[in-house]
Amino acid sequence: MKTIAVETGVFDNNDKKAKQVNDFLHEKGIKVFNLLGTPGSGKTTLLEQILARMDKSKVAVIEGDLYTDQDAKRIENLGVRTVQLNTRGACHLEAMMIEDALKELDLDGIETVIIDNIGNLVCTAEFKIGEDIRITVSSVTEGNDKPLKYPLMFQTTDYLVLNKMDLVPYTNFDVEEFKKHVLSLNADCRIFECTAVKGEGVDEIVNAMK
Amino acid sequence: MKTIAVETGVFDNNDKKAKQVNDFLHEKGIKVFNLLGTPGSGKTTLLEQILARMDKSKVAVIEGDLYTDQDAKRIENLGVRTVQLNTRGACHLEAMMIEDALKELDLDGIETVIIDNIGNLVCTAEFKIGEDIRITVSSVTEGNDKPLKYPLMFQTTDYLVLNKMDLVPYTNFDVEEFKKHVLSLNADCRIFECTAVKGEGVDEIVNAMK
Repeated sequence: MKTIAVETGVFDNNDKKAKQVNDFLHEKGIKVFNLLGTPGSGKTTLLEQILARMDKSKVAVIEGDLYTDQDAKRIENLGVRTVQLNTRGACHLEAMMIEDALKELDLDGIETVIIDNIGNLVCTAEFKIGEDIRITVSSVTEGNDKPLKYPLMFQTTDYLVLNKMDLVPYTNFDVEEFKKHVLSLNADCRIFECTAVKGEGVDEIVNAMK
Repeated sequence: MKTIAVETGVFDNNDKKAKQVNDFLHEKGIKVFNLLGTPGSGKTTLLEQILARMDKSKVAVIEGDLYTDQDAKRIENLGVRTVQLNTRGACHLEAMMIEDALKELDLDGIETVIIDNIGNLVCTAEFKIGEDIRITVSSVTEGNDKPLKYPLMFQTTDYLVLNKMDLVPYTNFDVEEFKKHVLSLNADCRIFECTAVKGEGVDEIVNAMK
């Protein structure tokens, strides 16, 4: 596993760079996923479950974190090619960081790249980082009002994974109302229900990613 | 309830402005709390429970949100003087926004101001907004690793409220390990356990705020 320290800064040409990253990977026949969500929504646990269902020789992971490499170690332990991106406190990934990370990845034979973004329901939504598909993870313990309070994330995502479904009976979460809010912001969003920690509902997500 | 739209921007002198805000309120004998945490940690539910235990004529709330006024309405319905700050997508509050909000608040007889910050575990930690005390809300469903992954928030908080304790039996959350991580970053942090939705553990927090 390699660790890259990324200097924070404002990148004027993020969208242009995101397209370059996307074009570069498409030329190699690689599909790119941007995994988003609030801290503790279960992104990395879901990622582990997704990877367990994929051919590990054909998938690579770029793991975004502020400072630590805990999550990258979790992923690398699965036998998946992994690059750690540390933002040194910055609250989101940008396309230029992904360009740097790709230089450190052996892409030979890789068909899928999954980028595990910083835990943040606001800033990460503003930056394209070369992805084909955005997967946003929400957990039922976060409450029903999150789509309306943090709309950009829900408006711009392709898939919405509603995680920790096993905890619904112990909360006041209303699954149908939540879905209604998501679809009111983004009628094309595909919504999946899952309990990542138990591996429930993950097969459907992996099938959609193919 | 008044709604103020705040233009986003970079404020060079945030810390200086934060001190001015703090001085202004101290001269009036008002104590200021900054309520922080990730989206869905339960900040506003905790705030409702705190307010239910306070003299509502002596407390005012500044409610930070990206776009909506849902939370401000919840608070105003309790009979508490409330100002809504909408950041139009910006991921944190800054001291200048609080200065603007205070102009809209009748502070006569007020002894406590509570600022309900944007749901964000990264950016909000970087900006002092005139507070005496930071209260960070974490929920047990967010997992054990959050203090180490998002250290600035835990390093800079005065109180840490561990919320949704009623869900511990249904998760793999380790309360003692979490506390150990928090205290390793911030030995002076006061940690409270609560289940805000049921009002459990809130009295201790209110007592500490006096």
